[in-house]
Amino acid sequence: MTIKAYGAHAADQPLQALDIVRRAPGAHDVQIEIAYCGVCHSDLHQVRSEWAGTRYPCVPGHEIVGRVSAVGAQVSGFAPGDLVGVGCIVDSCRHCEDCADGLENYCDRMVGTYNGPTADPPGHTLGGYSQRIVVDQRYVLRIRHPEAQLAAVAPLLCAGITTWSPLRHWRAGPGKKVGIVGIGGLGHMGIKLAHALGAHVVAFTTSESKRGAARALGADEVVVSRDPEQMKVHAKSLDFILDTVAASHDLDAFLSLLRRDGTLALAGVPASPHPSPRVFNFIGKRRSLAGSLIGGIPETQEMLDFCAEHGIVAEIELIRAGQIEDAYARMLRGEVRYRFVIDNASLADAA
Amino acid sequence: MTIKAYGAHAADQPLQALDIVRRAPGAHDVQIEIAYCGVCHSDLHQVRSEWAGTRYPCVPGHEIVGRVSAVGAQVSGFAPGDLVGVGCIVDSCRHCEDCADGLENYCDRMVGTYNGPTADPPGHTLGGYSQRIVVDQRYVLRIRHPEAQLAAVAPLLCAGITTWSPLRHWRAGPGKKVGIVGIGGLGHMGIKLAHALGAHVVAFTTSESKRGAARALGADEVVVSRDPEQMKVHAKSLDFILDTVAASHDLDAFLSLLRRDGTLALAGVPASPHPSPRVFNFIGKRRSLAGSLIGGIPETQEMLDFCAEHGIVAEIELIRAGQIEDAYARMLRGEVRYRFVIDNASLADAA
Repeated sequence: MTIKAYGAHAADQPLQALDIVRRAPGAHDVQIEIAYCGVCHSDLHQVRSEWAGTRYPCVPGHEIVGRVSAVGAQVSGFAPGDLVGVGCIVDSCRHCEDCADGLENYCDRMVGTYNGPTADPPGHTLGGYSQRIVVDQRYVLRIRHPEAQLAAVAPLLCAGITTWSPLRHWRAGPGKKVGIVGIGGLGHMGIKLAHALGAHVVAFTTSESKRGAARALGADEVVVSRDPEQMKVHAKSLDFILDTVAASHDLDAFLSLLRRDGTLALAGVPASPHPSPRVFNFIGKRRSLAGSLIGGIPETQEMLDFCAEHGIVAEIELIRAGQIEDAYARMLRGEVRYRFVIDNASLADAA
Repeated sequence: MTIKAYGAHAADQPLQALDIVRRAPGAHDVQIEIAYCGVCHSDLHQVRSEWAGTRYPCVPGHEIVGRVSAVGAQVSGFAPGDLVGVGCIVDSCRHCEDCADGLENYCDRMVGTYNGPTADPPGHTLGGYSQRIVVDQRYVLRIRHPEAQLAAVAPLLCAGITTWSPLRHWRAGPGKKVGIVGIGGLGHMGIKLAHALGAHVVAFTTSESKRGAARALGADEVVVSRDPEQMKVHAKSLDFILDTVAASHDLDAFLSLLRRDGTLALAGVPASPHPSPRVFNFIGKRRSLAGSLIGGIPETQEMLDFCAEHGIVAEIELIRAGQIEDAYARMLRGEVRYRFVIDNASLADAA
């Protein structure tokens, strides 16, 4: 089955319309007509091979929502017409401790939704900037939001789970003071989710201009992190801080805001390393610096159900496939509030 | 009460015999005739003002053991003749959350056994390189080891608790694979304690020559950390690593040995920072880098009781007060197996 997609033939070429092939659904597969696909910052990194190792043609996209169009003979949980999602993971080893624990995101053989190894042509996975995808049922998520919200659900599949997983793991909830650093694609979801989980949320931004928006997203307090006086007010007071900033920055400024036994968890991977944090900032209050990568399939379903129940979606700007390069440029300039989502119907008439 | 001590008048002067004054025991105080005092690497750092802020005269020493010679009217738990110890802490605020949790070591107003603020002359605390000390009963530990082991018990008060606290906090025990980095004053206690707690212990050393000694201390495996092949064998396999090395070194080499959710805890404070660890080493397996500082009073007692029950003491070399400068020089050259302990009886005839 040849379908239309949008992708790049090389790191230095712009994305363009492509024809790609999807496998016919196997016994355990779900075939999905993609309605919308979110645009993640890692799409840009990978399609331009900024993290190295990108295979071409590269079709990015791992915030996929759509409707089931066919299922294999052994598929029990999904039927044609169902609203479903696919996130960053389309396969894993299925038998290691991580897979057994529902944390396929940490499996050493986790297969990414694009640029991962596969037996399908062309030998690597092709993502959601396309009309259709075929995925083993284990990695397909059920969407219980109203269909009208579908485009705004798409970013939950990466930005949502990437913030949800650490917030849950480090127990954000009532009685906890939780910081979210950075108010972008990930951060804006972090604020919404931490607030809905019942935590007291402190948003950290470098930009005074985002104060009102952060409050509107659910932050109880907003701190301009470049202002030492504002930072000092929160010294030794936060239980947990989720740092979504993918640029190198001073971690000590945030470590010193943690209470005893607090954790600063990194969800962003900067191109150059952060300055080395001071050892005494760890030892003095038994603090931790940690990292978290996406989330597992069961917790992704948990997050989607929680969001449906609480009416939570991402703040998005809908674009057509032909606008992707413009969207990347605006993303690099920080001009997105807060996530671009592609209307995949626009692929049908893409040149 | 004027007593004899050993200390320095300035950062650039050698330690020498001094006369110092101890307060008469107050209602809640325990007066202790010091039998032995361990020599900790931080004694050297502080007496030479390498961490800044040292007040002079400086009398180091926070691995103190001895016998009670008098108690105040309100002291109930101790009586003259009791074998007791004093570690790194002689006071704290007594009402913050840390103090309430028995973690006085993290109290912002924790008073160190030397170089801490006090109303006693000369305005800062003076440590265990002295004949006698007077300490509030809350900060005095009971020693249940046989008296013949008393000198070798002294290092438990700092090296012991500094390794015990993180091993317990991060749940070293049966079924856990625990690494100890560095086989010095702290590390040799870490190996003994982790082994006695039932963990599978992997000792990491830069020196092939320490292999036999590490095995004798209780290590199940010994890895020369400069050898990438030996390190690779343990990739992604350790639950917890306690890093006792106080010199700047590559943390990535150890982070990459942790399983998912594993923690690398730093117990040493190097003079220059460690190279910044790679963010992906945190994110890829949800690993943590943490720090731990000494331990609280209740857990220090727990550790001493555990050691008495299991027959655990430090490996020591007994010295006279006049040998302290020589001991420091040997400590800097790594020529101590594994802790110097001062025989405080030698202070009586110190010049």
